[in-house]
Amino acid sequence: VTVYLVGAGPGDPGLITVKGLELVRTCEVLVYDRLIAAELVDEAPRGAMRIARDHLDQAAIDELLVRLGCRGLRVVRLKGGDPFVFGRGGEEALALARAGVAFEIVPGVSSISAVPASAGIPITHRGVSSQVTVVAGHDPDALDLDALAACPGTLVVFMGLKALPELVQGLLAAGRAPDTPAAVISRGSTPAAETVVADLAAIADAARSLAAPALVVVGDVVALSSVLGGNVESTSIEYAAAI
Amino acid sequence: VTVYLVGAGPGDPGLITVKGLELVRTCEVLVYDRLIAAELVDEAPRGAMRIARDHLDQAAIDELLVRLGCRGLRVVRLKGGDPFVFGRGGEEALALARAGVAFEIVPGVSSISAVPASAGIPITHRGVSSQVTVVAGHDPDALDLDALAACPGTLVVFMGLKALPELVQGLLAAGRAPDTPAAVISRGSTPAAETVVADLAAIADAARSLAAPALVVVGDVVALSSVLGGNVESTSIEYAAAI
Repeated sequence: VTVYLVGAGPGDPGLITVKGLELVRTCEVLVYDRLIAAELVDEAPRGAMRIARDHLDQAAIDELLVRLGCRGLRVVRLKGGDPFVFGRGGEEALALARAGVAFEIVPGVSSISAVPASAGIPITHRGVSSQVTVVAGHDPDALDLDALAACPGTLVVFMGLKALPELVQGLLAAGRAPDTPAAVISRGSTPAAETVVADLAAIADAARSLAAPALVVVGDVVALSSVLGGNVESTSIEYAAAI
Repeated sequence: VTVYLVGAGPGDPGLITVKGLELVRTCEVLVYDRLIAAELVDEAPRGAMRIARDHLDQAAIDELLVRLGCRGLRVVRLKGGDPFVFGRGGEEALALARAGVAFEIVPGVSSISAVPASAGIPITHRGVSSQVTVVAGHDPDALDLDALAACPGTLVVFMGLKALPELVQGLLAAGRAPDTPAAVISRGSTPAAETVVADLAAIADAARSLAAPALVVVGDVVALSSVLGGNVESTSIEYAAAI
């Protein structure tokens, strides 16, 4: 194996896997995303080449990985979260497979569950939610909001902060109850994390000052954050209402 | 903090987080699930108390954690996958919160994405799937199969092996295309892993000999396994058909 596609986890450098950290510590080339913790980049060997992907588009990354892999270098491609959850890791893997370069996927802790957990929200909970629907929210027009509004359980939206007002409007128009508990967690699992909890009808306003990246969670499990969330700022949700 | 609810990841002991392993190595009591790798249990300090939860029901576990926590012991509750994804970690956290015992959630790599990844299946992939629906499949009667059949993107079913024939029948009856690519991954991310890939209409038969625990994946992303999956046994899916 020459190229490892490694998930770094949701932010906290301690949440990389043991295997992922070992690979970073023994790589010859580290190609890493903008949001990777500096502590993890610093774990690469002193002599390793470090390449920040900041100014490379996806095609350039794919080509870079193929080129490095063809030279037989031990490459770690370190990606935020999990490589296969809205991480475009599949495209990088495909490019490597098509070029005949050996590769391995090393999964990471995805934000799907870890970021809500950091705010005291279990995405599943017996008697409250046994279904989770995960979507990308940067383009609400691409979503079937009627179907999403009807999904039972928990809705988790990646990249949903910018278009949150449209997203919420669409869910309400499609019949989702205005008092459904909702949360926005900004920069979850980092020291800069901020969480806002409110009714669905009020969440877009309540989250207006938050910064990307952020995860949106909609569903009755959010109400558990008032008990499990420690110091989460909660505007209007009563724990007793949903459980 | 006295009680840590720690996700051990999907099976491979190298997929525990760095933080999780550090906690195991410094605990006074380790309470662990049946499917936890022996290598991880062995990482607990020589003098630590090790409690296998095999014969305890959930209420007994909750009570045990509260009792240990009240004594101020440094307890690690090591759970398969992620504590908050069908892991009943929320119930344990609630019991601790209600008893006033300090606790912390340490997320783990969930099977949601890691087990499909081990078979070369990215659960999201640009142009193929940007939505993932996750359900528990042990009781298909509890599911809205009409709604599930209509969900775009990828369907991931936990605990779906035993009732797979009913589940498939329900999805087909609700209009899901019989040639939708599907996979069952048994004991994913362990040395005993086995994967079967087939059309939805054929998957229950194809997976008949597989052992639990298993994850079921339905959707066009499954077709990528023929290119990304290495040595995955594929019965009838053509990569070109779906991509």
